[in-house]
Amino acid sequence: MINKLNDKIKKTGAPIVVGLDPMLSYLPQHLLDEAVQERGESLEAVADAIFAYNKQIVDATCDLIPAVKPQIAMYEQFGLPGLEAFKKTVDYCHEKDLVVIGDVKRGDIGSTSAAYATAHIGKVAVGNKTFTPFDEDFATVNPYLGSDGIKPFVDVCKEEKKGLFILVKTSNPSSGEFQDREIVDDEGNKRPLYEFVGQMVDRWGSDCMGDEFSYIGAVVGATYPEMGKVLREIMPKSYILVPGYGAQGGKGADLVNFFNKDGLGAIVNSSRGIIAAYKQEKYQSMGITEKNFADASRLAVEDMIADIASALR
Amino acid sequence: MINKLNDKIKKTGAPIVVGLDPMLSYLPQHLLDEAVQERGESLEAVADAIFAYNKQIVDATCDLIPAVKPQIAMYEQFGLPGLEAFKKTVDYCHEKDLVVIGDVKRGDIGSTSAAYATAHIGKVAVGNKTFTPFDEDFATVNPYLGSDGIKPFVDVCKEEKKGLFILVKTSNPSSGEFQDREIVDDEGNKRPLYEFVGQMVDRWGSDCMGDEFSYIGAVVGATYPEMGKVLREIMPKSYILVPGYGAQGGKGADLVNFFNKDGLGAIVNSSRGIIAAYKQEKYQSMGITEKNFADASRLAVEDMIADIASALR
Repeated sequence: MINKLNDKIKKTGAPIVVGLDPMLSYLPQHLLDEAVQERGESLEAVADAIFAYNKQIVDATCDLIPAVKPQIAMYEQFGLPGLEAFKKTVDYCHEKDLVVIGDVKRGDIGSTSAAYATAHIGKVAVGNKTFTPFDEDFATVNPYLGSDGIKPFVDVCKEEKKGLFILVKTSNPSSGEFQDREIVDDEGNKRPLYEFVGQMVDRWGSDCMGDEFSYIGAVVGATYPEMGKVLREIMPKSYILVPGYGAQGGKGADLVNFFNKDGLGAIVNSSRGIIAAYKQEKYQSMGITEKNFADASRLAVEDMIADIASALR
Repeated sequence: MINKLNDKIKKTGAPIVVGLDPMLSYLPQHLLDEAVQERGESLEAVADAIFAYNKQIVDATCDLIPAVKPQIAMYEQFGLPGLEAFKKTVDYCHEKDLVVIGDVKRGDIGSTSAAYATAHIGKVAVGNKTFTPFDEDFATVNPYLGSDGIKPFVDVCKEEKKGLFILVKTSNPSSGEFQDREIVDDEGNKRPLYEFVGQMVDRWGSDCMGDEFSYIGAVVGATYPEMGKVLREIMPKSYILVPGYGAQGGKGADLVNFFNKDGLGAIVNSSRGIIAAYKQEKYQSMGITEKNFADASRLAVEDMIADIASALR
């Protein structure tokens, strides 16, 4: 799957991923009204509106981008109907041949991690039949529990040719509270915890190679470009998934450090900046209204591609 | 909710929680056969069998115990039908007045953590109606992302009078890979990362007090009793949820360190040891078969209560 992701990035020239994180406040009122008219004030109505919203955004952008990243929390908060919309979104994105990164940040130990891996990137057998529960292509994973928590995911990746992005340095302001603490690594060197986690990602990924990159990637926030530079060197074979561009403050120029010299090796996420672009004055002044929100998403994708391309030039 | 948990522990004399982690290999064949006969070889059949299994175990043990802890991964691996069985299990346990600890190990940043908190311990409004998506009483949370990831959960806890158990030192063999690394804390003292996370749990929990304990608890594995002793002192107001008893190797005698002198302040989880007790020779020799698996669960709960009571004496 890392080969497919890398190929699609080369083909589109767009090392970007659209974060399908449909907060209630982003949903255009007319989509919500239509769904409530049909389903009443219910979780099912919200789920229908979410799927309609995602579908139009995907339709408007899928020829420009390699991948999407639905954030499962935004669906999980609407209970079972919300998770049904998550699954429908994953399936629809596959129909459009997009790579789907499930932003699930799961992580547990042994058989429990194996169950999460099955849920998101694996298969489960019931008698003679086999099912793919949520069927994403990549999953994000939390490393706090150590190798026991990661190995079961890696095993499923090898079997299914899928991939992971492991949290290394997250984009939020307080990510340093634990991640930046100085520790002593296995070679006796002092370094921040995130660097040591990066070393481990490199180690875990070394026997999971695709053609050019490992199946095992890392998450490093756009908001910490200097740390991105160091981590790029520590994990030369790992794709870096970069959140925090746009709304969280990361700029195009900050992103250079996350890429290899050939412009590959990183994929930058934007959620609000694309899916809620219709709320920005910039696009409203170009004739965008809530009704044609998906056109704004396309414009925002084009702008983001140009911003990153100019930074990488 | 921490008051209810503490009261129920006093009333039952059982500082234990039954882990409802229905792996496919634990399900008695006759439950699976009945479900497949009705639903075919499908995720729905497995989900029905899981709920039937849980229901019988809950019926057989609910008068002896204060709480259950369904591990959501074991449901999530069966997709939407699996998660429906999770929700039905939570609801059924509430009917039986059990405290439900959702073992979800979620954790993200800002609005995403808020969405997870809503999903598991909060409410969501759609127009004039309000829904409780999964409706657990406590959720387990991963601290790797720092305060930004924890605060939104804490906010929902305060509003809803619910609670958290934050991962501090997990029970698995490789938990030390990151958690045991020596760091320098905010006061300039060298200490393992798990101790520093424990300090933070104490800090986060200090303004979330119930009558005797904080709403904000911690997870510390039974397999690390010496660390449990230190953490008990670092987090005097926090309940400690203790996994790793039984199947993972933790013994009754190891548990003393996790409790206060009055025998409160900790709750010990057992999953396999109780829900799959029918597979143990010990109970088979007492006339247990797969058909009356729930009787074995009751016997195993009684044995566990006695084991812990004798250790605490």
